[in-house]
Parts: sequence; structure tokens; C-alpha cells
Amino acid sequence: MRAIVVTHGHEDHTGAIHHVLDEIGAPIYATPLTRALLEAKLNRNAQTKAGLTTIQAGETLDVGPFGIEFFHVCHSIPDGVGLAINTPQGLLVHSGDFKFDRTPVDGWPTDFDKLAELGQRGVLALLSDSTNADKRGWTPSERVIDAAFDDVFRRAPGRILIGTFASLISRMSQVAAAAERYGRSMAFVGTSMIENARIARRLGYINIPEELIVPIDQALGMKPSKVVLMCTGTQGEPSSILGRLSSGTNRQFGVESGDTVVLSSHPIPGNEEMVHRTINRLLQRGADVIYDAIAPVHVSGHASQEEQRQLLQTVKPKHFIPIHGELRHLKQHALLALESGIEPENIAVVENGTVIEFRQGRMSIGERIPGGYVFVDGSGVGDIGPSIMKEREALARDGFVMVHLQIDQKTGRLRSTPEIETRGFVTLRDADSLLAQARTRVGEVVAAAKGDDLKSRLERELGKLFYAETRRNPTVLIVLSER
Amino acid sequence: MRAIVVTHGHEDHTGAIHHVLDEIGAPIYATPLTRALLEAKLNRNAQTKAGLTTIQAGETLDVGPFGIEFFHVCHSIPDGVGLAINTPQGLLVHSGDFKFDRTPVDGWPTDFDKLAELGQRGVLALLSDSTNADKRGWTPSERVIDAAFDDVFRRAPGRILIGTFASLISRMSQVAAAAERYGRSMAFVGTSMIENARIARRLGYINIPEELIVPIDQALGMKPSKVVLMCTGTQGEPSSILGRLSSGTNRQFGVESGDTVVLSSHPIPGNEEMVHRTINRLLQRGADVIYDAIAPVHVSGHASQEEQRQLLQTVKPKHFIPIHGELRHLKQHALLALESGIEPENIAVVENGTVIEFRQGRMSIGERIPGGYVFVDGSGVGDIGPSIMKEREALARDGFVMVHLQIDQKTGRLRSTPEIETRGFVTLRDADSLLAQARTRVGEVVAAAKGDDLKSRLERELGKLFYAETRRNPTVLIVLSER
Repeated sequence: MRAIVVTHGHEDHTGAIHHVLDEIGAPIYATPLTRALLEAKLNRNAQTKAGLTTIQAGETLDVGPFGIEFFHVCHSIPDGVGLAINTPQGLLVHSGDFKFDRTPVDGWPTDFDKLAELGQRGVLALLSDSTNADKRGWTPSERVIDAAFDDVFRRAPGRILIGTFASLISRMSQVAAAAERYGRSMAFVGTSMIENARIARRLGYINIPEELIVPIDQALGMKPSKVVLMCTGTQGEPSSILGRLSSGTNRQFGVESGDTVVLSSHPIPGNEEMVHRTINRLLQRGADVIYDAIAPVHVSGHASQEEQRQLLQTVKPKHFIPIHGELRHLKQHALLALESGIEPENIAVVENGTVIEFRQGRMSIGERIPGGYVFVDGSGVGDIGPSIMKEREALARDGFVMVHLQIDQKTGRLRSTPEIETRGFVTLRDADSLLAQARTRVGEVVAAAKGDDLKSRLERELGKLFYAETRRNPTVLIVLSER
Repeated sequence: MRAIVVTHGHEDHTGAIHHVLDEIGAPIYATPLTRALLEAKLNRNAQTKAGLTTIQAGETLDVGPFGIEFFHVCHSIPDGVGLAINTPQGLLVHSGDFKFDRTPVDGWPTDFDKLAELGQRGVLALLSDSTNADKRGWTPSERVIDAAFDDVFRRAPGRILIGTFASLISRMSQVAAAAERYGRSMAFVGTSMIENARIARRLGYINIPEELIVPIDQALGMKPSKVVLMCTGTQGEPSSILGRLSSGTNRQFGVESGDTVVLSSHPIPGNEEMVHRTINRLLQRGADVIYDAIAPVHVSGHASQEEQRQLLQTVKPKHFIPIHGELRHLKQHALLALESGIEPENIAVVENGTVIEFRQGRMSIGERIPGGYVFVDGSGVGDIGPSIMKEREALARDGFVMVHLQIDQKTGRLRSTPEIETRGFVTLRDADSLLAQARTRVGEVVAAAKGDDLKSRLERELGKLFYAETRRNPTVLIVLSER
């Protein structure tokens, strides 16, 4: 008996499901919003295969020997749950992705009573979200954004564009409320933003008055000071709305002087440079740009250290397993657990795929099941591995050189001047003498050739020549025609 | 009359000089440490050409119609200067890269008296460092690091490795002081670290007792709890000491359980992911890793908003030109100037290369001189431009496919099965059917060919086929042999 239990509807928790549906033939359980967002990613065929079942916070589900109790947790998307998993060995608590927002936008705080009850029943192990384990204090409530939005809406002379994650449903409510306060109409821009808003409104997770919302075509015809557009692209993705606006390639409309662009988001680690480039380009186009470094227009959806400590102290687990974070976050979270009184031998800092066993109330760490990243590239899933990535890295660094030789089968001599093509290596107009040298070297190697390792000798010799002349290592490809 | 005046010895202020020496034939002026660090980058020939002259804070230099007064500013390298430039139109003040550290490690604070004097003389325009224009408050003094180091040295059970920028001379003093307090010997690791320590000690910018320093070979033979190693690699560069230690490819020694690694640095924007990967890998190897998110082991070398405000209010310029930062920082700095009472029309937010003219005390913004990045790649300077970068991006994304056809000149038919080679596109063992399809398509295109656009038709048709089958766009290269 197996099941896939999804704690919330974010991409990093739902995005891989359709790739593994065939291999893991198990029913999927999720809360209403999570289910609807997941369904939007699956085609009809996959939906049938997936065997989706709706569960609610407060309900219980039996999966083989496990009894799972779902409890509500706050996060940067509504309808998130944590799991209390009753096992024959004891009670496990899985936090899901969470924060302890006391005043969440949807008015539905984390179920503290349930956490206290679990703590009193006795918890064998806690698995808890480590994302912000290196952030001191408390993550602010989503409510702080209202004041920042007030400030933006009060001052903005023209159009307001608010970029955020398409899954940040509560931010849609906050923008709608600000629009209402300041007499602006609101339009959603971008497929995923429109789709998610539709789902959340249909299911009642956000409640925006019908008359507040206008289609984008209509919004573009209105007085700029009377509209706010909500769009995607906070990570600087070139094909997103904000990405296209920043590069001047959005067809429907552009960014203009007088526009105020708000990035209600934080760069996902690794995206910082792209995000900053997008901000700079929007500024170049004359927009005013407000982002989280200069005004509190975004807060994290994950618990900081004090919330992580509170969860530990409420649940009082015997064992602790930090989850959801890089190794540096897991280690830091383990330190907090240690400070909270968990015995060092009862803390397991492990990476994904590691088996942890409980027997007679004792924890042991098993083997790590071989695994790793599966790259999805175009329509291919898993066909790109480390060797292809290395080839791409080499090509990205130094490009390639293709040399085509026609060789006389009888004499072993060149029949004509070798033909050379390059991509990403040198600017051809500057490379006349380099390529002439390469042709000469080819002639020398062919003249001296004995045996049939001509191709690899040419690759080696040309590689040496190019490195000596340019300090670059292009990929060299030899094409031989013999006749 | 032209001159190159260097404010301090950091790479982003000195690194390009040897590339432009030939084009800009001008003498170079720098303080002793800056000069020595610059000389270390130039070969003897370039040093002669460079015409280096030592200047000191407090001195004055005449360059044509300009009289330049140098004044000391604190930064994350000793011997930094700001410039007061007397021009026929009035006095310009250039901050250099600065912070207002009241208790700098070398005991030499920014020359506040000079700034006040300049303010009283009347300043036509201030050009000021904008790096931290989006950081509230004050940048902490370098001194806060001493307490964090105390904490690390007190707890570390074994070897301590401290990674920082090779130019962070004051950090060397701080590590040496901590080593002395806790009875450890100190070794420098890495060419640039050793070289810069040597220069700074020779010129008296750091004062480390001879008996404290041991060569790395000797340090490696000592009891781990008795040594601290200072090395490079805080940006996750794969070829740096910390980069090699994290990937297990450092020849001389490795990182072990019991080691404490301190990253006394902050990721340069864009390097975050590499830095975090390095931290995770060091943790995987069993080291304890301390970095700026979890302990104050680093502070910025640039002024935050309150220091920027103080400079504005002390110097009281009529005009303000924010410099040294991305556009988003310049805009933010301009806002601070506005708040400090500078007239909006007297603030110029411009990008590099823009001419600013002063006539009769009035500022006007001129044309932008065409320019941009000049890439240095291998031994080539400026030969790589946007088109080559685009080819590299395409190759990095989807690799390439080379198809070699032998065509019968008389019949126009294929003489043999086309030969196909790929790099970075698909894993060959999975691609049998795709490449078979490609060969068939080549046959079809050749059979239907009329006219001599065969190459481009093949490229187009194969591109379509590959995209349809894989949703990838490899670079397609056709090689034709006709006979």
C-alpha cells in the first residue's frame, strides 16, 4: 500500500508528480486548492491515472499501517497542511512548509492546538522545514505588506504593476484590497497568474469583488492612475511578463515612464543576478521600481529560527530530522534542536534518499538509495546526464571548431584545402591568421600520418595549437572524407 | 594632459589597467599599497610603460587645469583615498570606495576634518559610492569581526581555515591577532594571498610578529588545534583553495572532520549559488562551516545609507552624481540626496560613459560615449562580442549536430549514408531512432533538392525535425562533399 501525500500546491512539491506517475502507481491525496493546482498541471489522461482524492485539514487517512492526521499550517499559499503520521513504532510529525503567521491574510493561522495535542501524545520524531534556519527571529506576518502597498498606492502617479509568484494567492487578495482602498481596477496578466486566480476564486480561497477585476485589454485603455496589473516574472525569467517588459519584447504593452513596478517577491537563490538585471532594465525604461531591499513588499513563507524553536518545544519530539533546505540549513536547524534539548544522537542530518529506521523507539540511519537530479530538457526527461552537461559546459566556455578534410585514398594526401567552421570560438574576421595556421598544421599532421589514428591526432594537435594561440580550449571535431 | 588616478588597490579598480595602458598613454598615480598591488599585476615592461608615481593622502597633484587633493577614506583595503578636484568651474569631490568606520583595524579613520573643510569651501558636485544605497543604517566597524573570531577560535576543536579576499589586508591583521590570543600559528595559502601578505607586511600596512607565521608545509605537520590557515576562494571559484578543498581536488591537503572553515566574506552578486554549493560540499566533508549568515564574520567595506547621508550633509554639494553601483543603487542614492536637500535638477543619475558638463556653475548631461563590456577570454581581449556570446549560449542550451553528406556530383544523389556527430544534444545510446529519422529526412531533402540552397534547406529541415522530436534547438552544421 503506497500513497502520495502533497502538503501544498507549490511547484517544488507538485511539479515532478506527472513525471513519476507511471513509475509510482499510487493514489494522490491533497487539500482542495492543492488538488486543483495539481490538476491544472496534468492532462486528462494523467488526471485519471493519478487517482486524486481530496482531503481536508482535520481529517484522517489510513495508508497501510499508517494513520495520517492532517493539520493546517500557514505558508505563502493557502490550504497547506502538516502531517501527524501514526506508525506502529510511534508518532511522526511532518511540518510541511510552514510559518507561524498570527495574522494571515486568509485569517486561518497554523493549528497550534493540534501541535500542542501532538506534543502531549508523545512524538517519536519531528521532520521540520529548514529553509530559514539561518534567519534569526520571526518571519513577519503577510500583513506587513499591506502598509507597504498603501505607501506604493498612495504615491504612484500612474500605472502600478505588481509582480509576484503565480501561486501567491494571498498576495492577490492583498493587491485587490489595496486596489479597492485606492480606487483602482485590477487586471491579471500572464497565463499562470490568470489560471491560478480563477482556481482560487472558484474554490473560495480569495474573495475579490467582481467589479474590481477587468480584463487586461480594458485595463490598458483606462487612465493609468486607475489600474493595477498583477503579473509574473519576479525571478527575471526572460519569457515572463516582467522579463519581456524589461527587455522591451512584450507585445501587448510596454513599461513607460510614470509606471511603478513592484517586485513582491524575493530572488530564489541563484537567480539574484537575473532579478537585479531585470530591475535595472525596468529603471532604464523610466519605471519606478520597488523591491524587497527598499520596502517591505514581500515576506518569506517559511519559519525563521524562533518559529522553528517554538515548533520543537511544542511538539517535544524524541528525535529530530531537519528537512527542506540545503545541507547548510539542515545543519543549522540541527543546532537549534540541540539547543532545545534534543539529544545529539537523536538528530539525523541526512540528504535526500537516505533511509532512516525506527525500531523499539531507537533511530538508525540506513543506506542512501542511489539517486540524484533528473533533468527535464525540452520533451526529454532523464536523457541528459553528466556527460552531456560537461559537453555543454565545454561548448559554452570555448565553442567548437569543425575541420573537414578530403584525403586521397591512394596517396594519403590532402585533395584540397581543409574546410574549417567555428561557432562560439573566435570572431571569424579576426581569425584569418589563426585558421591559416590551423590549415598548415593539418597539412603537417596528414603528411606525417602513419596508421589510422589520424582523427585523434588531428584533434590533439589542433587543440594544442588553439590553446597556445588563444588560451582557449574549443571542442574540435574532425570530419574525414576519403576517396 | 591626462592622468590615471587610482583610489585603491581592489581588482575592480586596477584589473583593467594593463589592458588599456597602450591606448591611454597617461601616467598613473596611486598610494603606496595601491601602487604595489598594481605593480604585482604588471610585468616589468608594462610597469615601465605605466609611469607609476606614488602619492599620499594629504598631498596635492596638478594635472593640466586640475588640482587634485587626496584625502584618506576607510574601505575594506588600507590606503584608500578620495579626491577633491579643483577645476576652473569649481570643486568636485569624488568619494572613492568608502565607509565611515570609526574604529578601523589600522587605526586610520576617514579624514572627516578634510570633508568638513571641503564642505566649507563650497563643493560644485559630489560623486559618491552607491554600492550599499539600499542598506539602511550604518555599516558596522571591522572591529565586530574580532568578537566573532573570538567565538570561533574559542570553540574550534581542530584546525581553523579562514577564507577571505586576498586584498582584505585588515582581515589578515585580525586573524593574526586572534591567532596570537588563542596560541595558534598562522599560515597563508594561495599565491595571491601569500603575495599580498608579503607586500602589505613589507610596506608596514600590517604588523604581524614573525614568529606567528609558519609556511603551509610546517602548519600541516602541526597539531590541528595549534594552527589557522588563511586562504582564498570565498566566491566558490572551482580553482581557488576553498573551491578545491570543497571538491576534494586540493593536492597539498584536504578538509577533514574537526576542521572549522570560516568564510569571512559575502557573496559578490551573481556568485550566491556557487558560494552556497561550496559551503554545502565543505559540510559534506565533515567540516564545520561559519559564514556571514550565521555569525558576524564579515562586514561590508562600503557606506550604508546613514554614512551616505552624512557625506552629503558634510560636503554640502550643489550637484550630486551617484557612482559605483548598478542603476538601482544609483537611483536609490539619488533619493537620499533629494532627501538631503539637493535640488532634483541638480542630481544626475547616469550610466558609465555619459558626459556631464559644468558651465557657469550649471550642470548639463551630454551624450553617452559608445562603449560597453570588453570581454577578456583566454589571451584574447575584446575579440569576443555579442554574436559569439549568442552562439555560446545556443551551444550551452542545446548542443550541436554535425551532418556530413557525400553527394554524387553527376546524379545529385547521396553516395553513402550521412554521417552524424553530436555534442551536448542527446545521449547517443538513446538517440538511435532520432538519428535514423534525421538520416531519412536528409535523404528526402537531397532527393527533392533543386538549386544550390541545399545546405540551408538541410539545416532548416533538420532543425524542425529535432525540435518536433525533442523540443530542443541544437546548432545544426552541414558538411557537404561533392564528387
